[in-house]
Amino acid sequence: VFRTITSVFKRHGAVQIDTPVFELRETLLGKYGEDQKLIYDLKDQGGELLSLRYDLTVPLARYCGSNAVEKLKRFHIGKVYRRDEPQMNRGRFREFYQCDIDICGSYDPMLPDAEILAVLVEILGSLPLGGEGEGGGFMVKLNHRKLLDALMGSCGVPPEKFRAICSAIDKLDKEPWEAVRKEMVEVKGLDGGAADLIGGFVVNEALTSKACGGTAGLVAKMKTEQRLATGGGKPELAKMFEDACEDLLTLDMYLRNLGAADKIVLDLSLARGLDYYTGVIYEAVVLGAGVGSVAAGGRYDRLVGSFSSRDVPAVGVSIGVERVFAVIERRLGIAVAPPSADGETGAAASAPASGTMSTVRQNTTDVLVCGIGGEEVVQAKRLALTRMLWDAGIACEFVYKKNANLKRQMDLASEQKIPILAMVGGEEVQKGTVKVRRLFHSDAEREAAGGEDAEKEVKESELVAAI
Amino acid sequence: VFRTITSVFKRHGAVQIDTPVFELRETLLGKYGEDQKLIYDLKDQGGELLSLRYDLTVPLARYCGSNAVEKLKRFHIGKVYRRDEPQMNRGRFREFYQCDIDICGSYDPMLPDAEILAVLVEILGSLPLGGEGEGGGFMVKLNHRKLLDALMGSCGVPPEKFRAICSAIDKLDKEPWEAVRKEMVEVKGLDGGAADLIGGFVVNEALTSKACGGTAGLVAKMKTEQRLATGGGKPELAKMFEDACEDLLTLDMYLRNLGAADKIVLDLSLARGLDYYTGVIYEAVVLGAGVGSVAAGGRYDRLVGSFSSRDVPAVGVSIGVERVFAVIERRLGIAVAPPSADGETGAAASAPASGTMSTVRQNTTDVLVCGIGGEEVVQAKRLALTRMLWDAGIACEFVYKKNANLKRQMDLASEQKIPILAMVGGEEVQKGTVKVRRLFHSDAEREAAGGEDAEKEVKESELVAAI
Repeated sequence: VFRTITSVFKRHGAVQIDTPVFELRETLLGKYGEDQKLIYDLKDQGGELLSLRYDLTVPLARYCGSNAVEKLKRFHIGKVYRRDEPQMNRGRFREFYQCDIDICGSYDPMLPDAEILAVLVEILGSLPLGGEGEGGGFMVKLNHRKLLDALMGSCGVPPEKFRAICSAIDKLDKEPWEAVRKEMVEVKGLDGGAADLIGGFVVNEALTSKACGGTAGLVAKMKTEQRLATGGGKPELAKMFEDACEDLLTLDMYLRNLGAADKIVLDLSLARGLDYYTGVIYEAVVLGAGVGSVAAGGRYDRLVGSFSSRDVPAVGVSIGVERVFAVIERRLGIAVAPPSADGETGAAASAPASGTMSTVRQNTTDVLVCGIGGEEVVQAKRLALTRMLWDAGIACEFVYKKNANLKRQMDLASEQKIPILAMVGGEEVQKGTVKVRRLFHSDAEREAAGGEDAEKEVKESELVAAI
Repeated sequence: VFRTITSVFKRHGAVQIDTPVFELRETLLGKYGEDQKLIYDLKDQGGELLSLRYDLTVPLARYCGSNAVEKLKRFHIGKVYRRDEPQMNRGRFREFYQCDIDICGSYDPMLPDAEILAVLVEILGSLPLGGEGEGGGFMVKLNHRKLLDALMGSCGVPPEKFRAICSAIDKLDKEPWEAVRKEMVEVKGLDGGAADLIGGFVVNEALTSKACGGTAGLVAKMKTEQRLATGGGKPELAKMFEDACEDLLTLDMYLRNLGAADKIVLDLSLARGLDYYTGVIYEAVVLGAGVGSVAAGGRYDRLVGSFSSRDVPAVGVSIGVERVFAVIERRLGIAVAPPSADGETGAAASAPASGTMSTVRQNTTDVLVCGIGGEEVVQAKRLALTRMLWDAGIACEFVYKKNANLKRQMDLASEQKIPILAMVGGEEVQKGTVKVRRLFHSDAEREAAGGEDAEKEVKESELVAAI
């Protein structure tokens, strides 16, 4: 999975950049909305007040800001940290990998945005997420912050409540409208009438991509909505709405050119809780997987500027690898290479032995060098032959026993499915030879090789070539 | 460098295992001697008290202990965290990579130890650490905790002071004997006579590998030392000394068999500050590099047992990649791929722009797809062709401008040294063709290709093949 993601990132010309796992606490404050409480702070042990990175986006922006970077297309695969309740089966951890790609710099509208979405579709499309049927396993929900702001403003939400109401809308994928409306009115103090107006847009079957035949259709439909088109009587909101619509139409055209449009669905109820987005936002979900979104991102044109004197527009996406793993594992019914030995992450949880590691080996050893008999010359030769194979780049091992009998060594080879034995006894040492035996760990292997356990004796100097 | 290290680890049959970056604070306490103060603690925000890992060894032991692992040969490349003063030019950071390989399990004495040392020598020997002359650039100092304990005991150090005096001896590579003796006597409260007796062993030209012609010679020489041989009159110390000598001789024999002995130097003044070692200890230094040790390790037979009801003997080594980088950079006089974009690590330090990233690109883009002219069909074709190349696995990009002129696109290609242009204009779109041009970014490249800027026009369907 990591290899797939990295290769797509590179195919799009991105360079790999790493930023530190710590950031100054003040760097992270005010960036994550209500989820700010999930930031891990370090104890004040003298020196700066530090926190662990919550994502890879804010550190990138800090890096661009403090190094006066104006253009950068970078990717970063690294761990981030959140003080959350781990839910292993849903792929939620306190320490997890994000795979990010971002394009920073001033460019023509929507071209970088379209490439980022194309990258996302390309990556998810090349992973075994299942469901060749409807939607091909996954879809990417798309929305635009300006559209949301215009919509909220037109419905009578005061600007200072935009972010809070946005957070509430963001919960629509988990909660019914009634619960969200209640939060808006009772917790966030929004007028009930305004909440109902919002509901008329964000939970309205008629205002979906599906009902309107795609992004362009939905945009056209929205333009017929008087309240949106006039900004509820406020010209600046009408302009904002108009801008957002134009962005979405341009983006849709580019996505069609890039062959990525059929996975992208404009969805007015997508809000994204983070504070720093300023333009398009998106979230990828795997249909029927029940792990929440597997990737998310958007445009953040003013985040770099918060760390320096000038803004650098930027757009990016984060892929949550653990959630992707969770989906793949469930689909295939097997354990995919887990990103971490301690699945629970955060050591703290009571350690669940996810398969006893004591018997599971995943090494790639090709040769077991065996000594037959305990004479010192045999033991010395055993190590010297191993050395010779290592020097030739061959993965090999010997058992950590001075004079193990052959049976025991063969048992180990068969337990670990090592395919070749190189054997020396006193006689071979004298003759300067080695016995090489090919082992078959299944009938299929044996058949493929013609049925016999091939064993041959070669000169020491020919050992590497014989293997 | 990471690739070299990983390939050697795999060639020795190790499996890769990751452990979390957090550990319970109590897991880390009492493991690191006086350096315990360098552990980063997380703030108490509710939940467990956590710290960041200080190394990869204690987390491995905790993992083996809590998952009842009895045998494991694993490697782990990961970051560790220390509240230290960063010294960039010496390769010291607060966040840095360690590359560890460890062999856990009960085996015949010194066989796993010998392999770990062989791995270390193999890795360091394959890195461009320079100095083909004496010592081949690096050497590995070797000692044995039991030898040190027997030595200290024989000289009259009470057992409860062993670790403290060990820490003092450990500073001999940075401080003269007088300063170390002073610390022993004035800070650690050791009897002056005992300190002098220790000095007679650990700073004695006659008791070095060099003077005695290697490990076996030095061991033989030590055996003639009455005080060591008799344990200062204490039979249990004499036995301990005898055991350590036998271990060292056995190890020396295996190392000779494995062809790694000539890099290993028994050194009585090597002590290692960490609490958990119980057998052989070692440290690799690059001759004349001034970065301290680049790798260190040893045997820790009781660490796993501290996390479970049964001991699992183990031995391992950690390689400090940043220090290796520092050495290579200094030798070659160039900047080697830095492990992190923010060299200073810990974000907190005042950001030093180590080369303005705004102009440096390190991507691997092979093709720039160019549109000539602003017509919509050209722009659409530009993106569609890019899509075609991506699908074919070719790394390509387009400029984020709607109708960039060709000059501008060629400038970008030449700035980023992209070797191939794929160009479409209105005419090509009509004919269904693409112009492919090979660019030369240096005279050498041009000459190698026969001197001419090759440009050809191919059918769209033949574009992938033409590139």
